[in-house]
Amino acid sequence: MIERIAIIGMGLMGGSLARAIRQAGLAREIVGWGRNASSLKAAIDAKVIDRAETQVARAVRDAELVVLAIPVGATAAMLSQLAPALAVHAVVTDVGSVKTSVIADARAALGARFPQFVGGHPLAGGEASGFAASHADLYRNSRVILSPEPDTDPAAVTAVHQLWTALGAQVATLGAREHDEILARTSHLPHVLAFALMNMVASDPRVPEFSGNGLRDMTRIAASDAVMWRDICLSNRNAILASVSALRATLDEVARAIESGDADTLEKFLARARSARRSFGDAAP
Amino acid sequence: MIERIAIIGMGLMGGSLARAIRQAGLAREIVGWGRNASSLKAAIDAKVIDRAETQVARAVRDAELVVLAIPVGATAAMLSQLAPALAVHAVVTDVGSVKTSVIADARAALGARFPQFVGGHPLAGGEASGFAASHADLYRNSRVILSPEPDTDPAAVTAVHQLWTALGAQVATLGAREHDEILARTSHLPHVLAFALMNMVASDPRVPEFSGNGLRDMTRIAASDAVMWRDICLSNRNAILASVSALRATLDEVARAIESGDADTLEKFLARARSARRSFGDAAP
Repeated sequence: MIERIAIIGMGLMGGSLARAIRQAGLAREIVGWGRNASSLKAAIDAKVIDRAETQVARAVRDAELVVLAIPVGATAAMLSQLAPALAVHAVVTDVGSVKTSVIADARAALGARFPQFVGGHPLAGGEASGFAASHADLYRNSRVILSPEPDTDPAAVTAVHQLWTALGAQVATLGAREHDEILARTSHLPHVLAFALMNMVASDPRVPEFSGNGLRDMTRIAASDAVMWRDICLSNRNAILASVSALRATLDEVARAIESGDADTLEKFLARARSARRSFGDAAP
Repeated sequence: MIERIAIIGMGLMGGSLARAIRQAGLAREIVGWGRNASSLKAAIDAKVIDRAETQVARAVRDAELVVLAIPVGATAAMLSQLAPALAVHAVVTDVGSVKTSVIADARAALGARFPQFVGGHPLAGGEASGFAASHADLYRNSRVILSPEPDTDPAAVTAVHQLWTALGAQVATLGAREHDEILARTSHLPHVLAFALMNMVASDPRVPEFSGNGLRDMTRIAASDAVMWRDICLSNRNAILASVSALRATLDEVARAIESGDADTLEKFLARARSARRSFGDAAP
């Protein structure tokens, strides 16, 4: 049982985490910090958190575990603010989609306390955002990646690992750089592409009337939060730009086959993708 | 009541059309043509068609209405084969995703009979393919685009219009060139992009383990039939290449903002896409 947990951010991720911890009875007290007064009030009204704080130093005081659930670009400033108020043995983790920049920010802000920080990333969420979209099952059966550094306290890793496991998630460990390279391909590039495709097709007013489910599937994640994704794009810039380049090269390959009328090459390209997609499956592992 | 309808192709589209016509009791006799003996047998066993033919001249004989449900690249050869066997007043239509090339093929193959041809395209289907995936409700509430030419017989248009309306679809009319330009954006480009994205990410063996629903949504239609999409890409080449170029320019725009760290431009780009996607909605109109 955790005596007190502080969740920094009451959006989809933080709100869902508070609900899941409450439902599983993992903490005696859940403190929520948020900038959005109506989200905090909703979390209090739903008895999802026990106490709402708008001052982060008050939110983290005497908490055993502090979880950041804010856009990754806000990490440095937030950790600098809360560091002086942290309890001596407090473990700090986050749910951000980028790990190298978050870990560098944590190292700078926490100094000698950095070994108590464990970078984390639950592969859960989707295009909905805000506390109103939060639900207790968001993390159940999801995969959570932890990215400990060589100097991270193993006890801190264990504490964070236990939290996610108790919520029904499957924990894996990846180095921060490897995490960022893989996620650039599996998540960040698809989001950038969905945003770009949506902007491109939306320039034509006839599009909505003549669209089917394919375009809707392809652009669903373009409804995701813009500030969150702005921060991810800037924080994982190099890996994302490398992925955009790789996609551009693949797109050029198929465009060349179309342009030259090379039916054989084109069919092989499409059949290869089809076969990969069919073995990929429809449910996250 | 149609006395006899011939459906050329017993895949997802043709099979679903036969099922829907049967269920609605619109035809006294449904004849199915296919190259795949097991699909034809399945259609007969399910009493979805009354007669199976592997010779197209036999399939269309004395049919009032002939519907092509084959890859668009097979249109020219198929129409040349069936033209001599058509009944005098037979109306011919198709369900292909490209209209200019199909109409040009029909004009060449049918000659003086071309006014009896009505190009059609139901916006229905998805990534599943084959008779096994067919179902009677595929076209219900879907949009069907008809692309009559100036010399198309209005009575033929009416007959095809009535068929789709009787099956619960909503019929719209678009010129063939306009159809192909719009569909390049709303359907063909998204498919090309999904195939390309799938091939690009599949080159990394760690991808499936660390993928969430975003990538699955973005690549779902990459499981679509390769021959069907090869033909669409080649038949609507110019409009598709123009769409790929437009997407590439939009992708360059967002990549530039990421590369230069222009947070403002990036956030505006993402917020614009988000707003467009949210007003786009989740169900086809």
